[in-house]
Amino acid sequence: MEKKEIKVMEKILSANDRVADELRAEMKQKGILSINLMSSPGSGKTSILERTSGLITEGIFAIEGDIQTTLDAERLVSAGIASYQINTGPFGGDCHLEAGWIQNALQEIDLSGIDYLFVENIGNLVCPAEFDVGAHLNGVVLSVTEGEDKPLKYPLAFRNSQFCLISKVDLLPYLDINMQRMINNVLKINPEMEIIILSSKTGEGMDEWVEFLEKRAR
Amino acid sequence: MEKKEIKVMEKILSANDRVADELRAEMKQKGILSINLMSSPGSGKTSILERTSGLITEGIFAIEGDIQTTLDAERLVSAGIASYQINTGPFGGDCHLEAGWIQNALQEIDLSGIDYLFVENIGNLVCPAEFDVGAHLNGVVLSVTEGEDKPLKYPLAFRNSQFCLISKVDLLPYLDINMQRMINNVLKINPEMEIIILSSKTGEGMDEWVEFLEKRAR
Repeated sequence: MEKKEIKVMEKILSANDRVADELRAEMKQKGILSINLMSSPGSGKTSILERTSGLITEGIFAIEGDIQTTLDAERLVSAGIASYQINTGPFGGDCHLEAGWIQNALQEIDLSGIDYLFVENIGNLVCPAEFDVGAHLNGVVLSVTEGEDKPLKYPLAFRNSQFCLISKVDLLPYLDINMQRMINNVLKINPEMEIIILSSKTGEGMDEWVEFLEKRAR
Repeated sequence: MEKKEIKVMEKILSANDRVADELRAEMKQKGILSINLMSSPGSGKTSILERTSGLITEGIFAIEGDIQTTLDAERLVSAGIASYQINTGPFGGDCHLEAGWIQNALQEIDLSGIDYLFVENIGNLVCPAEFDVGAHLNGVVLSVTEGEDKPLKYPLAFRNSQFCLISKVDLLPYLDINMQRMINNVLKINPEMEIIILSSKTGEGMDEWVEFLEKRAR
């Protein structure tokens, strides 16, 4: 990589970090807990949010990041969660969200009555971890179908998160997955990680997830 | 995005495309079919290659792309496939492979007796599709666990591929997945796509996959 490019990237990152800090302060002042969810495509982020809305009495808003389609925002609206879709572009498109885009989106969103603001990042275990979107909490969703080795292979998303939701555990009986090894690999990258094992299909672990959110919101 | 950055990106892409064309010509001259596999993390690319090696009598070489770890190359070597690991970097790391890196790797690889060169790209359904790695065939692996909507949400990888392996079909009985809808979504993005439905666990569809490879190698 040429030196010039590195400089450009540094400039973008430092501008992004400034906006991210502003966002965190603004949400805190409004009494809103903001949570950034990162993961591979199809790990179950949207399904977890759908199920969360039925278990939590407070107001939830979700900003959905996708390269294309409004499918996830439509699903959430059907589940009773107000949401806003950011599309990063039809051809290739940006592989992550940035704090400035969240700030722009928030100018069009009415947050009165909202206690939790979720940012559902682009399905990508690499790039989103490099950009602070200004959330109070970063979390990574890891489906048991993805294999035990993913924390080791994609360490930054795990290093930069405070919690990890291990999802789709209802599928464990049909997979050759060693759950303890998966957990150990998460902790190897981030010993402070709060791990919640859940299934949005059976509801297993969802109470623990909601309890985690309510504790952090206080 | 500033204009300067777009120009830098264009310059990289056009240099990359030149190297990719060179690679394609070189491999063709050597009688080697080169295949680039793209997918989300954990879709089963490495398992498919492991199983393929037992079904094909010709020589296979695999170039493994990962941000970190040599886990996949180690798995392939255990399965009898010679392989070379490219790590794109420990902190964050590049989210895709480029043709120049493949060209550099090939300078250290002995390809005598090799008929198939696989490039297992970084697990990422976004960025790898933007960079031609100089393969004769591009393919996308889509696990049934990822959901029917992924071709619509990550269209470029599907648009730029000639074949799609729908993997882990042994899990279908335990998922709420409409397989016909998944197939229709693939074809909506790329009507010319050759689709092979398979499971590296049960072996279902693996004969069809090997037949596809052998037909293309001729």
